[in-house]
Amino acid sequence: MGLSEAVLSGERLALARLITQIENDTDPGRKVLDELFPYTGKAHLIGVTGSPGTGKSTLVNQLAKYFRSPSNGQDRRKVGIIAVDPSSPFTGGAILGDRVRMRDLTGDAGVFIRSMATRGALGGLARATTGVAQAMDAAGFEVILIETVGAGQSEVDIARLAHTTLVVEAPGLGDDIQAIKAGILEIADILVINKADLPGVENTERALRSNLEMGHALKSGEDHDRFHNVRASISILADDSGWTPPIVRSIAAKGEGITELADIINKHAVYLKTTNQWQQREHNRLKTELKLYIMDRLYQTWREQVPESIFEQALEGVLQRKRSPFETIEQLLQKSMLKF
Amino acid sequence: MGLSEAVLSGERLALARLITQIENDTDPGRKVLDELFPYTGKAHLIGVTGSPGTGKSTLVNQLAKYFRSPSNGQDRRKVGIIAVDPSSPFTGGAILGDRVRMRDLTGDAGVFIRSMATRGALGGLARATTGVAQAMDAAGFEVILIETVGAGQSEVDIARLAHTTLVVEAPGLGDDIQAIKAGILEIADILVINKADLPGVENTERALRSNLEMGHALKSGEDHDRFHNVRASISILADDSGWTPPIVRSIAAKGEGITELADIINKHAVYLKTTNQWQQREHNRLKTELKLYIMDRLYQTWREQVPESIFEQALEGVLQRKRSPFETIEQLLQKSMLKF
Repeated sequence: MGLSEAVLSGERLALARLITQIENDTDPGRKVLDELFPYTGKAHLIGVTGSPGTGKSTLVNQLAKYFRSPSNGQDRRKVGIIAVDPSSPFTGGAILGDRVRMRDLTGDAGVFIRSMATRGALGGLARATTGVAQAMDAAGFEVILIETVGAGQSEVDIARLAHTTLVVEAPGLGDDIQAIKAGILEIADILVINKADLPGVENTERALRSNLEMGHALKSGEDHDRFHNVRASISILADDSGWTPPIVRSIAAKGEGITELADIINKHAVYLKTTNQWQQREHNRLKTELKLYIMDRLYQTWREQVPESIFEQALEGVLQRKRSPFETIEQLLQKSMLKF
Repeated sequence: MGLSEAVLSGERLALARLITQIENDTDPGRKVLDELFPYTGKAHLIGVTGSPGTGKSTLVNQLAKYFRSPSNGQDRRKVGIIAVDPSSPFTGGAILGDRVRMRDLTGDAGVFIRSMATRGALGGLARATTGVAQAMDAAGFEVILIETVGAGQSEVDIARLAHTTLVVEAPGLGDDIQAIKAGILEIADILVINKADLPGVENTERALRSNLEMGHALKSGEDHDRFHNVRASISILADDSGWTPPIVRSIAAKGEGITELADIINKHAVYLKTTNQWQQREHNRLKTELKLYIMDRLYQTWREQVPESIFEQALEGVLQRKRSPFETIEQLLQKSMLKF
């Protein structure tokens, strides 16, 4: 039995092997992903992001347990968890997180957990995460929770990947919290104030609400054009109709607020599907993905045609300020057999 | 007088105009950067990063004031500040930060401040920031402080760009702080515990020290190979000799610890220059930069040769699971006149 068949038949070891191939971006890995592709597109991809200290991991575990619970009034769903740790590009710090999770969810064949550290290459993490999500999707995992630490590009990448993006907050996490939120809020489909038993929860909610309203005013107000110009280039994040990100309180460590949150997550999936945005998000995501691969292939092909010595020599010329970068790039491009 | 000459002669308005061109990635902007390139390479690029709430902006302002001070026993240096706000990809939240800074540093012709929000494109921010730093460098700014919020790819990008990377901590910023640090620490040349008058400062320092030692053990211990394999792909961050990141305490809001920090920053510059690592970092940075531009040019050239309708049609085929992504990519690549 080939690796594709093994993954499709639900063999965990096969899935784990495939994921390793995807992480290492191997040719066999790509081939298997290609074979599996017709079986993907069913899973609900949920991004979970927010600052350190908000209790994201605990929240993700609780959501996983909820989706696995036979008593939640819905069908039990198979749950994949991808814990992306972009702050550990080097030493694989994600491993520790894995062990902690295992205590709660281990032994349940309906749960598959994988931690990933940042790839070195630009866009490498987003690409690898997409691949891993596809593999889990093909293997029959119906809900895939993608957790990431950090603020910035990684969140935008997640928003690109996920159908539903949760932004997790917690009370009292620093004084420039409001400055931060202005941007982060815009990728949120659902806002979660976790650790809602901590003091300051009212302030956090008030700050989030006023930021949300500011964002709303911005959308419909005088800054409309500027806003939409910026949006144009990242149209996947556009939310043109109807959905206002709700604010949900939770205390994940005590399991409180999880049912309400899961309900809203499910509602968001229904909303996306009935407004055709589900498909629109897939379309945009795939477009970005194809672009990244094509850039990569073009560069590889070019690189194979330009000897390392030529490249290094050109680089040296620039470093010594003998030649300018753009001039050098044009000269380097001419050195390949690609036609320009 | 052309824009290049105006920038070289120190005209602030010209510099501001050029930076706007760089941010919008225009052809004239690239041309001017190319003309200015021979005049770059003198500035000390200092990256300042860390979680929200650590007081990075205040610290950056204090450092700027210190470098501008005639009483610090050193020559006054011209200071550029680039405030990168990767968490505000949409609404340009960086603007607020600008206004706050202005109060302290405005009116000093030896200081130039620019805020930047995240670009939509992958690597776009790193590229734009590199360009802006080069423009300031050519305009005679001798110290360029590049401040970023967030954890993840943006830090790695900064470490790629800067000669010296400061990672800023503060006591009591959340319970998964230690898990986070494992990765962030490795891009730090200098660790700053700001807000050192807050309770918990001893714990923070202890945690940082033990993480540093862990990292050190990892470098020399049994995980040596794994570590170096990962490092290989991001060799710019390697610190093969001699420099152990010192931990400096500061209370930026009161101006305490700034002199000590500035001394260590200057020592790091001397260290880099005497060990040839200054040049090595420039080499690696430039290599990455050239690669990004080449990828971009290759993609643009390819894109011009493939009609939008063909691209969208291919995309649709994939979305409907009629064709697999990799197969589609290969077919799309053949459709261009580039030779493979």
